[in-house]
Amino acid sequence: MTLSSMSFVLSEMSTAAVEASEVLYGGLAADVRLLVDVAIRTRVDAERVAAARDLVRQAEQILAEDASPEAAGIHFNTEGRSWNWGNAVVGVRNAIAPPVVLRWVDDRTVRSEVDLGAAYEGPPGCVHGGVSALLLDHLMGECGSAAHTRLIVTGSLTLRYLRPLPLGRIHMQAQISREDDRKVTVTAHLGSDDHGDKPAVEATGLFIVPRWAREGAVSGSLD
Amino acid sequence: MTLSSMSFVLSEMSTAAVEASEVLYGGLAADVRLLVDVAIRTRVDAERVAAARDLVRQAEQILAEDASPEAAGIHFNTEGRSWNWGNAVVGVRNAIAPPVVLRWVDDRTVRSEVDLGAAYEGPPGCVHGGVSALLLDHLMGECGSAAHTRLIVTGSLTLRYLRPLPLGRIHMQAQISREDDRKVTVTAHLGSDDHGDKPAVEATGLFIVPRWAREGAVSGSLD
Repeated sequence: MTLSSMSFVLSEMSTAAVEASEVLYGGLAADVRLLVDVAIRTRVDAERVAAARDLVRQAEQILAEDASPEAAGIHFNTEGRSWNWGNAVVGVRNAIAPPVVLRWVDDRTVRSEVDLGAAYEGPPGCVHGGVSALLLDHLMGECGSAAHTRLIVTGSLTLRYLRPLPLGRIHMQAQISREDDRKVTVTAHLGSDDHGDKPAVEATGLFIVPRWAREGAVSGSLD
Repeated sequence: MTLSSMSFVLSEMSTAAVEASEVLYGGLAADVRLLVDVAIRTRVDAERVAAARDLVRQAEQILAEDASPEAAGIHFNTEGRSWNWGNAVVGVRNAIAPPVVLRWVDDRTVRSEVDLGAAYEGPPGCVHGGVSALLLDHLMGECGSAAHTRLIVTGSLTLRYLRPLPLGRIHMQAQISREDDRKVTVTAHLGSDDHGDKPAVEATGLFIVPRWAREGAVSGSLD
């Protein structure tokens, strides 16, 4: 499989229709997120588990009555709006995604805060080291795209784990630290209020502008 | 928060009871995984979304009738069985986890195959680069624990992204490449059958045996 600008689908959906759809299906995903969390923590007996499973399967059947066989992909419209509803980090329709909401400080710096519950655990009571990698990879990819003015792919990513990160409110930041022709270097860190200013994880990423994407910018980074 | 051997909870649960519990609550999580997937792909109308949300909320309420306020943590019993049901990669009760099942080739090499669907998407139709990082971090951490004979934490992790990885069947392998006092170096790769032997992502990780864990081994790595 080769990625190209063809992988990004031009849609006739208006921005207003996109936003209405995000409210409708995003609300569903929000409910499913709560279910994912309580399914880990529940201690109810077998009879009640069976009753809950029956309801979950009924819901699944209703939703499967008309469903795309494909993953969500990345779409954009002529108004410059793009959407990647299934994305594992920011997808509003994806219950695996917290979802992360990005806050652009300027066109070279992006921040985010997110609450991570029981579903993101690795060490006891702590965020999985790989989840920190997942979030930072995404944040850094978005950052490297310079507010979606160019398309990039991840070349390499180095993570340094400095201290355990308790589950709960996490904050993170990424900034472009160097640009050299088709190579963009992004640095980032992630931590919790428990540690004050000390990050739990630091990262450096090298991102590449693919040759085919060098001329025309597509809204949305590849991550 | 500091991790220590105290973070791992000795349980009185027998291995047979642990396995029965995994069947019960693992079945629930399997149903929730299908729901996560179809919630991304569904195209049903607002009325049917509302009906599905009502069922999901009913299921959530049943499960919340008796639920721990805590994340799942890592437990072990006197029979040497350990379980981390909420783990973001291998947790059988966690619908975010595919879940990955590890296959030990020998005590220095571990492999796994996993099917990744719409919920793990990054670039259109492809596995999110951060999901590859999540899976490799976990696999490498387990590998570095030398089949759970020592407890380790991730020091650093470097990932090299070589080519896009389509959603679908993924295979991965990690092996210990060096051991030096409290430092363990693990290398790994991940790919799909589409690429034959060519990996999509290569990784090198440096794992550390914490001073407090040097003397007594605890079953289960920190990742």
